[in-house]
Amino acid sequence: MAKEITTRETDYAKWYNDLVLKSELADYSAVRGCMVIKPYGFALWENMRDALDKMFKDTGHVNAYFPLFVPKSLFEAEEKNAEGFAKECAIVTHYRLKSDPDKPGKLMVDPDAKLEEELIVRPTSEAIIWNTYKSWIQSYRDLPILINQWANVVRWEMRTRLFLRTAEFLWQEGHTAHATEQEAIEETVKMMNVYADFVENWMALPVLKGVKSENERFAGAVETYCIEALMQDGKALQAGTSHFLGQNFAKAFDVTFTDRDNKLDHVWATSWGVSTRLIGALVMAHGDDDGLILPPKIAPIQVVIVPIYKNDEQKSVIHSKVQPLLVGLKNAGIRYKYDDSDNARPGWKFAEYEMKGVPVRITIGARDVENNSVEVARRDLKQKTVMSMDGLIPNISALLDEIQKSIFNKALEFRKAMTTNVETFDEFKTVLQEKGGFISAHWDGFSGTEEKIKELTKATIRLIPLEDDGESGKCILTGKPSKRRVIFAVAY
Amino acid sequence: MAKEITTRETDYAKWYNDLVLKSELADYSAVRGCMVIKPYGFALWENMRDALDKMFKDTGHVNAYFPLFVPKSLFEAEEKNAEGFAKECAIVTHYRLKSDPDKPGKLMVDPDAKLEEELIVRPTSEAIIWNTYKSWIQSYRDLPILINQWANVVRWEMRTRLFLRTAEFLWQEGHTAHATEQEAIEETVKMMNVYADFVENWMALPVLKGVKSENERFAGAVETYCIEALMQDGKALQAGTSHFLGQNFAKAFDVTFTDRDNKLDHVWATSWGVSTRLIGALVMAHGDDDGLILPPKIAPIQVVIVPIYKNDEQKSVIHSKVQPLLVGLKNAGIRYKYDDSDNARPGWKFAEYEMKGVPVRITIGARDVENNSVEVARRDLKQKTVMSMDGLIPNISALLDEIQKSIFNKALEFRKAMTTNVETFDEFKTVLQEKGGFISAHWDGFSGTEEKIKELTKATIRLIPLEDDGESGKCILTGKPSKRRVIFAVAY
Repeated sequence: MAKEITTRETDYAKWYNDLVLKSELADYSAVRGCMVIKPYGFALWENMRDALDKMFKDTGHVNAYFPLFVPKSLFEAEEKNAEGFAKECAIVTHYRLKSDPDKPGKLMVDPDAKLEEELIVRPTSEAIIWNTYKSWIQSYRDLPILINQWANVVRWEMRTRLFLRTAEFLWQEGHTAHATEQEAIEETVKMMNVYADFVENWMALPVLKGVKSENERFAGAVETYCIEALMQDGKALQAGTSHFLGQNFAKAFDVTFTDRDNKLDHVWATSWGVSTRLIGALVMAHGDDDGLILPPKIAPIQVVIVPIYKNDEQKSVIHSKVQPLLVGLKNAGIRYKYDDSDNARPGWKFAEYEMKGVPVRITIGARDVENNSVEVARRDLKQKTVMSMDGLIPNISALLDEIQKSIFNKALEFRKAMTTNVETFDEFKTVLQEKGGFISAHWDGFSGTEEKIKELTKATIRLIPLEDDGESGKCILTGKPSKRRVIFAVAY
Repeated sequence: MAKEITTRETDYAKWYNDLVLKSELADYSAVRGCMVIKPYGFALWENMRDALDKMFKDTGHVNAYFPLFVPKSLFEAEEKNAEGFAKECAIVTHYRLKSDPDKPGKLMVDPDAKLEEELIVRPTSEAIIWNTYKSWIQSYRDLPILINQWANVVRWEMRTRLFLRTAEFLWQEGHTAHATEQEAIEETVKMMNVYADFVENWMALPVLKGVKSENERFAGAVETYCIEALMQDGKALQAGTSHFLGQNFAKAFDVTFTDRDNKLDHVWATSWGVSTRLIGALVMAHGDDDGLILPPKIAPIQVVIVPIYKNDEQKSVIHSKVQPLLVGLKNAGIRYKYDDSDNARPGWKFAEYEMKGVPVRITIGARDVENNSVEVARRDLKQKTVMSMDGLIPNISALLDEIQKSIFNKALEFRKAMTTNVETFDEFKTVLQEKGGFISAHWDGFSGTEEKIKELTKATIRLIPLEDDGESGKCILTGKPSKRRVIFAVAY
């Protein structure tokens, strides 16, 4: 093989890093905690972004763009939100460099160019956006505002990992304003469902839906809805959040409107976001020891065609035979690559496209041309089959659909097998240690209990499921009464 | 009229600001020099971005994403580039806030969280990108690298104007790496031509192509190619630049490769960019005293349909009649809006869509339904005509094409009328003062002469045309010999 990666069994964390680097999704950068998203990784993100963007627009949202910087006085206006992000803010304090008199050719921060008020590089944009909405909203006729923005944000994390936790990341953040509480809650739930739809049907990754406990809630939110996915090592990953913000930001920024009865009220808010972190989830949920496994619907290359030839004559014959196939793939809207480069041998190419998770590989050699057939290999199951050139395009289309479903079903089976109901704290600890995954257990509803469980086991409540199972019981830690089960896991 | 704007004749600068605000392209923000791009402005930018992005991809480029921050030591590596941007850098010096002990509920920069090395918020990304390319390039087989990124950048301008000059702006920056000087120069010229193609054929704005004089060259470039457009007030606006960077950045960051003959050489570079500034150009070049005039190919709404009714019954009849038309528009790929809201009267709507520059307005009333016709108004010439409902869609499509051409031709005629050949400095000053526009004149090739002319008249050399007219003469200021004419103007 051209490139080797650590196996999952040997070291899951190292496997993940190797895979991200060697599949050329991303690279480290010279800036602490920041990564470079390489062209292959960015093409994947573009496909994810475009699919999500269409879903947002189909549900009535529009895009806009707000400033990168948040003046400190606005940042601190909503106190809980400010408190939640204060410890991880990049802060701009100066606006000019000058020549360093002591070091020829070097620059230094010009002390005369100190800002009167420091600027926070946005870790999230509620503050700057609600300060802006204040001047846009007077009456119920100005509502709802359904705005999304695609942007970079910065959170100064101490421990970073490619895609999963980086100081700068790309995301989208929806910020909506409503005349009623009811409408805002409906929006919050709607966007959680959009996220679930996207992650399940495009990323082929099943998710649980629910609300966060108070401990895990977004700083400044009244309620945080979320979707949670399970990784192959049995840890959970928060794949998207949608926050009902109540009137907290409207009150902090004094955003009021006159309603239909001409009464003044504060505006109701939501915000919701997913980020490049989803790429980390994709890698960890589906990949194997040979590389990425990408769901066809978002794969930058869905089909790679590799010709096998011994000389230029064979290459030329294959080339002619392949042309109508390429036209057919293009017309069918299939993203393909025909790799006839002489730089690498077929075996190297096979390994490279397996590493990159290309769902389908078509191999065609001189013998295949004679037989009017090709060899088709699917990446997910590593199965090969011979297909006739006749009717190949619809068969490839069907295979891509089949792979999309198959990847989802495999992940769903895994999650089912890795979800355990427990009744006692001993059982809880044993399952966590020996198996991991989602653990469904009774909890007494107190934050202190959740904190104690986290302290003892590192597991947190990932979500309180939306559907109430109606089953009452006793808290696994305290034995106090519980009205319903919640989902625990150790999380990324 | 619903909203009033200053006329161009009264105050061109104020007209521009009024128009940007009242057409809802953008708004001021709480951050000095930064703007909010509102949904209508952002939809326009999305159309421009998508068209450009396709052109980049069609010419073999791929997108990627590099960090927002540039460590100071990398920033200063290419000295000319660093010097050029040092005075307008936003600088991150700290990474944490803490509670202010003197002001309950307020935050302050935590002095214990000072960065060891300051981070510059990118004003342009050559430094961070070439530092990254260093680890990606070893051999000629790794070349060319043809990467573009869509990103936000920050330049701390003292005087800002919506879109034209903002502290933060959105742009794309291409950064390519090549094995030979020849190939890099070809890339530079190719991208200038891509920009010219886009601005002329999508934005309907004719441009001149050429290279910058040394004074106006990008800091760190060997040669800057550019396209320049003319605004209605006779000032020039730089609409895009493409830089041949030679080996300057490769040398600053020690990026070498082994060529086909196994010799080590520094890599050749280009960079090229256009920004949200183009939206400013669009407004200023085409708008009139009633609002924006948007070229159909990039207009967020190409056709607005306004029903005119006196009662619900009429509204319902019109509604039924309009349905097949809406389906037809959609199928023809025409971006339309059917505005049957009862919030505003037709006259208000007409003015609003004129302000927003919607190319075509279709009005339909009860009488029109009887006659199987509609009234069609084109925004650019403010002409109305009655069209039959039969065959309406192809006629509207043709009209949109016609408007696109007409807007371009009007701008081209304007530029022709506003381009003047002068022979003497007196003539130069008179034309500048009384007419403005592009002035074609002889120049002796010295930077000092250009500086003197700028000092005396505010005009600069916008470009040295690509095609040499072969006409020699005498410099308008010094009388020294000149081999060719160059283009002067006062510029934005």
